[in-house]
Amino acid sequence: MSDLRIAVLGVGMMGADHVARITSRIRGARVAVVNDYLPEKAAEVAAAVPGARVANDPFDAIAADDVDAVLLATPGPVHEKQLLACLEHRKPVLCEKPLTTEVETSLEVVRREAELETPLIQLGFMRRFDPEYQQLKALIDGGELGEPLVMHCVHRNPAVPPSFNSAMIVKDSLVHEVDVTRFLFGEEIASVQIIRPAANPAAPAGLQDPQIAIFQTASGRHIDVELFVTTGVAYEVRTEVVGELGSATIGLDVGLVRKSSPGVWGGRITPGFRERFGTAYDIELQRWVDAVQSGSTTGSYVAGPTAWDGYAAAAVCAAGVRALESGERVTVELAERVGA
Amino acid sequence: MSDLRIAVLGVGMMGADHVARITSRIRGARVAVVNDYLPEKAAEVAAAVPGARVANDPFDAIAADDVDAVLLATPGPVHEKQLLACLEHRKPVLCEKPLTTEVETSLEVVRREAELETPLIQLGFMRRFDPEYQQLKALIDGGELGEPLVMHCVHRNPAVPPSFNSAMIVKDSLVHEVDVTRFLFGEEIASVQIIRPAANPAAPAGLQDPQIAIFQTASGRHIDVELFVTTGVAYEVRTEVVGELGSATIGLDVGLVRKSSPGVWGGRITPGFRERFGTAYDIELQRWVDAVQSGSTTGSYVAGPTAWDGYAAAAVCAAGVRALESGERVTVELAERVGA
Amino acid sequence: MSDLRIAVLGVGMMGADHVARITSRIRGARVAVVNDYLPEKAAEVAAAVPGARVANDPFDAIAADDVDAVLLATPGPVHEKQLLACLEHRKPVLCEKPLTTEVETSLEVVRREAELETPLIQLGFMRRFDPEYQQLKALIDGGELGEPLVMHCVHRNPAVPPSFNSAMIVKDSLVHEVDVTRFLFGEEIASVQIIRPAANPAAPAGLQDPQIAIFQTASGRHIDVELFVTTGVAYEVRTEVVGELGSATIGLDVGLVRKSSPGVWGGRITPGFRERFGTAYDIELQRWVDAVQSGSTTGSYVAGPTAWDGYAAAAVCAAGVRALESGERVTVELAERVGA
Amino acid sequence: MSDLRIAVLGVGMMGADHVARITSRIRGARVAVVNDYLPEKAAEVAAAVPGARVANDPFDAIAADDVDAVLLATPGPVHEKQLLACLEHRKPVLCEKPLTTEVETSLEVVRREAELETPLIQLGFMRRFDPEYQQLKALIDGGELGEPLVMHCVHRNPAVPPSFNSAMIVKDSLVHEVDVTRFLFGEEIASVQIIRPAANPAAPAGLQDPQIAIFQTASGRHIDVELFVTTGVAYEVRTEVVGELGSATIGLDVGLVRKSSPGVWGGRITPGFRERFGTAYDIELQRWVDAVQSGSTTGSYVAGPTAWDGYAAAAVCAAGVRALESGERVTVELAERVGA
Repeated sequence: MSDLRIAVLGVGMMGADHVARITSRIRGARVAVVNDYLPEKAAEVAAAVPGARVANDPFDAIAADDVDAVLLATPGPVHEKQLLACLEHRKPVLCEKPLTTEVETSLEVVRREAELETPLIQLGFMRRFDPEYQQLKALIDGGELGEPLVMHCVHRNPAVPPSFNSAMIVKDSLVHEVDVTRFLFGEEIASVQIIRPAANPAAPAGLQDPQIAIFQTASGRHIDVELFVTTGVAYEVRTEVVGELGSATIGLDVGLVRKSSPGVWGGRITPGFRERFGTAYDIELQRWVDAVQSGSTTGSYVAGPTAWDGYAAAAVCAAGVRALESGERVTVELAERVGA
Repeated sequence: MSDLRIAVLGVGMMGADHVARITSRIRGARVAVVNDYLPEKAAEVAAAVPGARVANDPFDAIAADDVDAVLLATPGPVHEKQLLACLEHRKPVLCEKPLTTEVETSLEVVRREAELETPLIQLGFMRRFDPEYQQLKALIDGGELGEPLVMHCVHRNPAVPPSFNSAMIVKDSLVHEVDVTRFLFGEEIASVQIIRPAANPAAPAGLQDPQIAIFQTASGRHIDVELFVTTGVAYEVRTEVVGELGSATIGLDVGLVRKSSPGVWGGRITPGFRERFGTAYDIELQRWVDAVQSGSTTGSYVAGPTAWDGYAAAAVCAAGVRALESGERVTVELAERVGA
Repeated sequence: MSDLRIAVLGVGMMGADHVARITSRIRGARVAVVNDYLPEKAAEVAAAVPGARVANDPFDAIAADDVDAVLLATPGPVHEKQLLACLEHRKPVLCEKPLTTEVETSLEVVRREAELETPLIQLGFMRRFDPEYQQLKALIDGGELGEPLVMHCVHRNPAVPPSFNSAMIVKDSLVHEVDVTRFLFGEEIASVQIIRPAANPAAPAGLQDPQIAIFQTASGRHIDVELFVTTGVAYEVRTEVVGELGSATIGLDVGLVRKSSPGVWGGRITPGFRERFGTAYDIELQRWVDAVQSGSTTGSYVAGPTAWDGYAAAAVCAAGVRALESGERVTVELAERVGA
Repeated sequence: MSDLRIAVLGVGMMGADHVARITSRIRGARVAVVNDYLPEKAAEVAAAVPGARVANDPFDAIAADDVDAVLLATPGPVHEKQLLACLEHRKPVLCEKPLTTEVETSLEVVRREAELETPLIQLGFMRRFDPEYQQLKALIDGGELGEPLVMHCVHRNPAVPPSFNSAMIVKDSLVHEVDVTRFLFGEEIASVQIIRPAANPAAPAGLQDPQIAIFQTASGRHIDVELFVTTGVAYEVRTEVVGELGSATIGLDVGLVRKSSPGVWGGRITPGFRERFGTAYDIELQRWVDAVQSGSTTGSYVAGPTAWDGYAAAAVCAAGVRALESGERVTVELAERVGA
C-alpha cells in the first residue's frame, strides 16, 4: 500500500511537531504538502522532509490531487472555512482543537458533515489515546469502580505566554477536561460554574489564575477542575474518578493508582516483558533500521550492543553456570578486546 | 528513500513479534522475506505481510538480492553459522541474544567481524533502549550519584515453561543483568558467584529457583541479582544503583525514584505536554492514518473524537467563559444531535 | 507531682477510648470519676480502672473535690450546661466536638469563658496534633509553598450508622475540614456552598452522599471538600495545599508528598533512628515496664528478646567479623539451647 | 499500683534518651536512680528528674532497695558483670545491645539466667516493636506470603563517628539484621559471608564501607544485607521479604508495600479514624494533661483549639447546613472576636 499523502496546514509548534512525527514515527503516511501563513516557515519545514512541497494557499493544498488527507494545525479562527473545504473535497481531516472558535460555526460544520455519507473530521483530543486514560476508561466501563459519581481534575502548567488571558484558561486548558468528562462518562455536561479564588501573586496582573471549574453532567455527576497555569513547577494533569466501589487516579507520575475494597491502595505490576519493554523493542528496531538505512553513507550499520557485548555476556554466563554448579566464586576470563 | 528490506529468520514468539512491529510501527523498513524451520509457520506469517515472501533456506534468505538486512530470531545453536553468512554477504544483522551458545564460537564471530571494515552485528539487548534504563544511565554518567558503588537487581517471572532448567536461569535471565551491568558501569565483570537458597516449594522439582547471583566488576563494584522465575505474581525487573551521593531505583512501576541528600526521596514530574502526551499523539496519528488508509474499503475515515465532540466542547467552553465572567452556574444548551 | 484526677463524662465509644488512653498511655493523669447517662455503662468502665469511682450526676462530678479536670464526651446537646458548670467551678475541660449544638449557645459559652481570667476550654479537634498536619502546617508557615492559594480535601468513610443523615455529613464530618482550614490558613471562612451530586446508589435512601463543600476564606482562598461516607472502602482523609511555589499532599498513606520546582515530586526520608524507631522504643519500654509490674504475680519479667537472642546475635556477629577478615563464608556454631 | 522504680546505668545518648522517655511518656514507671562512669553526667541527668538520685557505683544501684528494675545503657564491655549482678539480686533488666562483647561470656550469662526460675533479661532489639516490622511478621506468620524464601535488607546511615571501624559495621549495624532475620523467620543463621566491594571514596580511609553481608539460615533461606554507613543521605532501613506467594517491603517511607498475585502492588489504607488519628489523640490528651498540670503556675490550662475555635466551626457548619438545603453559596457571619 502506498503512503498516505498528507497536507499539513499550519506549522507552528504543534504543526511542526506533527510533521516530525509523521516523518519519523508514523508508518504508512508521509507529509506531501506544507502550508503556513508565513511562506518562509512552510519552506523551511518542507525542505527538511524528502518529497514534500510547499503550497502557498491552504485551499489549493486541500484541493490538490497529490493530497489524500489534511492535518489542520492552523489558528482556530480559520478552521471553519478550511474544514468546509475539506468536506467539499471529501478529504479526511485531523483537526487540532478547537473545531471552530464559535459555537454556532461549530454546529454548522457538524451539520454540513452530517449531510455527507461519511464522517471525515476527527478532532485532536489526544488524551483519549493516552494509555493512562485508556486504562481509566477500561476500569469504568468494566464496572470495577461501580457507578462513577465524582471526578476531581487538576490541570497545571508551569507558565503561560504573556498573551494568555483568563478566558483562554477556559477555552485552551479546560477544554481538555470537557472532553475527558464526555469521554469517560459518555454523557453531556449540563452546567458549568467557575470559581475565582484570590489570584497567584506570581501570575501576570489581571490573569485570573487559579480558577476552579465545576461541571454537572446530565445525570447529576459532579466534576471539579483546578486550573492553575502559572505554578512554576511542571506540567501536571491528574484525574481521579470516585465511584460506588472505589476510586482510581491517573497522572500521579506513578501510573494508575486504585483505592478499593477491602481498604487497599495500589497499582498493577507490568504483567510481562512485552508490556515492560515493548517501547524498548520499538526504539531498538527503529534505531537499527535508521542506522542501516544511512549506513551506506556513514559506514555505520550498528546502533546498539555489538558482537563483543554478546561475547562478553556469553563469557560471564558460562562462568555463571560453573558458579551455579560449584557454589563457589568463579573468575571470568575474557580474550583481548577486538573489534568495535 | 525506499524501505529497508528485512529478512526475518525464525518466527517463533519473538520473531513473530518483530514481524508485527516492523509491519505496523517501524518507519522505513518492511519484512521482505520470512524463514522458519517450520515452513508452514513461515508461510502463515508471510501471508499476513503485504509483499513478503517465504524462503525455505535461511542461507538463501541471507544471500538474496531482495534482502538488505537480517533479523535473527532463530534458536541460539544456529546463530553462529547464520551470523557468519551475514558477515560473508555483508548484510547488517540484528541478532537476538545469545550471540552464539558457546564462548569460543562467540569469540570467533567477534574476530571474523573485526576482520571486515565495518561492524555489522547488533545484539538484541533491548534494555539499553528502555527509557528508564536510559534515565538511570544519564544520572550515573552525569555524576549525580557520584561514584557508583553497589547495584541491586531483581529479575522475577511469574512462571516459566516446563522445559526451563537451572542453567537457563543463568543463560536466559541473568544474561540481561550481565549486559545491564556492563552498560551502566562501562566495565567488565571480573567474577561471578551463584547462591542456591532453599527452593520455592511451588517450583518444578529439580529447578534451583530462586538463585542469587553476585558479580564483582574489574574495579571492585558489587552487584547482586535475585533471579526468581516462578513467583506466580508478575514480571518484575528492578534495578537500584547506590552511589557515593545517593541512590536511584527503576522498575518500581512508578518511574525512577531517587534518594539523595539532604534526605529526600522522589521522582521527576513530567516536564511538559510533549513528554506527558507524546505517546498519545503518536497513537492518535497512527490510528487516524490507518483509518484513512483503509477508509475507501471500510467507509470509515475517523478513529477518534468527531466533529460533534468538537461542537460539544465549544458549547461547554462558551458557557464556561460566561461562568467565569458572572461567577454563577451557567446551563449548557446543546443543539439536537446530528451526525456520528 | 501527683496524677491529674480526671472526670470523664460520657463513656460511649469515644469516651471509653479516652478512658483506656488515659489509663494505659498518658503519663501524669488518671481517671478518677466516670459518669454516663447509662449508670451501668459507667459502672462497667469504672470497674476496669483502679481507683476510679462512678458519679451518678455529671454536675456532681464536675464539682467534686477529687476532680481536677473534666473530659467531656457526652452528646452535643448537653455540652452547653456541662461546659458552663466547668467554668463555674474553674475546672479545665477537654470537650469533644461540637462545642455546643447551636451557634448562639456556642457564642454564649465563649463569652462566659472570656469573662474569667483564664481560658479553661479546649476543643477536641485532634487533627491539629496529627504529625502529618503538623508537617503540612510547618511547610506553609515556613513559606516553602509560598502563598497558599487552594486546598483540596477528601473525607471518606466506608460506612455510617443507619441514623446518619445529610446534615450530619456537614456537622460531624465537614466540621473537621472547617477546623483544618482555619488551622492551616489562620483565617476565617467567609462563605460555604454545598453541591449535591447524584447520590451513591449504595447509600441509604434519602442520604445526600457524596456532597461537595466549597469554602471561600476571608482573603479569597478556595477550599473544596469531597464528603463521601458510604464508600465501602476505608477511612480516607486527604489534604492537598496548592501554593505559589508548589503543592503538598498528606493522607496518601505514604507520608507528606510534595511537588515543587524544578519539577520534582517526593517526600522526606526519615532522618535518623530516633525518628524511624522512636515509637518502637516507646513500645518496647512500656511493654517491659508492664511485664515487670505484673511479674510478681505472673512470673514473667520479660516481654521481648531474651538473653538467648543476645547470645545468638553475638555468635553470628563474631562469625561475621571473621567473614569480614577472610572474605570467605563462615559457619556459625551455636551452643545447645538453654533458658527461655 | 505504685510506679516501677528504675535504675538507669549509663546516661550517654541512648541512656539519656531512655530517661527522658520514662519520665515523659512511659506510664507506671519512674527513674529512681541514675549512674554513669562520669559522676557529673549522672548528676546532671538526675537533677532534671523529680525524685531521682545519683548512685556512684553501678553495683550499689543494682542492689539498692529503692530499685525495682534496671535499664542497662552502659558500654558493652561492662555488661557481663552488671548483668550477673542483676541476676544475683533478681532484678529484671532491660539491656541495650550487645548482651556482652564476647560469645563465651554471652553464653555464660544465658546459662546463669537459666539456673534461676525466671528469665530476667530482656535485650534492646527494639525493631521487634516497630509497627512496620510487626506488620511484616504478621504477614509472614499469617501465611500471606507463603513460604518465605529470600530477604533483602538495606542499612544505611548518613555518617558515622570518626572512631567507627569496619568490624563495628558488623557488630553495631549488622547485629540488627541478625535479630530481624531470627525474629521474622524463627530460626537460626547457619553461615555468614561478607563481601567487600570497592570502598566509598567519601568514607574515612581504611573503613570498609559499603559491605554486603550474606546469611544462610538453618533451613537454607538466603538473606543479603547492604551495610553502608557513610551515604551522606539519611537513615534508611529497608527490608523486603520474598515468599512463595509474593513479596512485601517495609522502610520505603511509604508503609508496607506488597507485590502479590495477580500482579498488583500496593499498601493498605488506614482502616479507620482510630488507626489514622490514634497518635493525634494521644498527643492531644498528653499536651492537655501537661498544660493543666502546669496551669496553676503558668495560668494556661489549654494547649490546643479554644472555645472560639468551637464557636467558629459551629457557625460555618450552620451555614453549611443552610447551603446544603438551598444549593446556594451562604455567607458566614461571625460575632466580634472575644476570648483567647
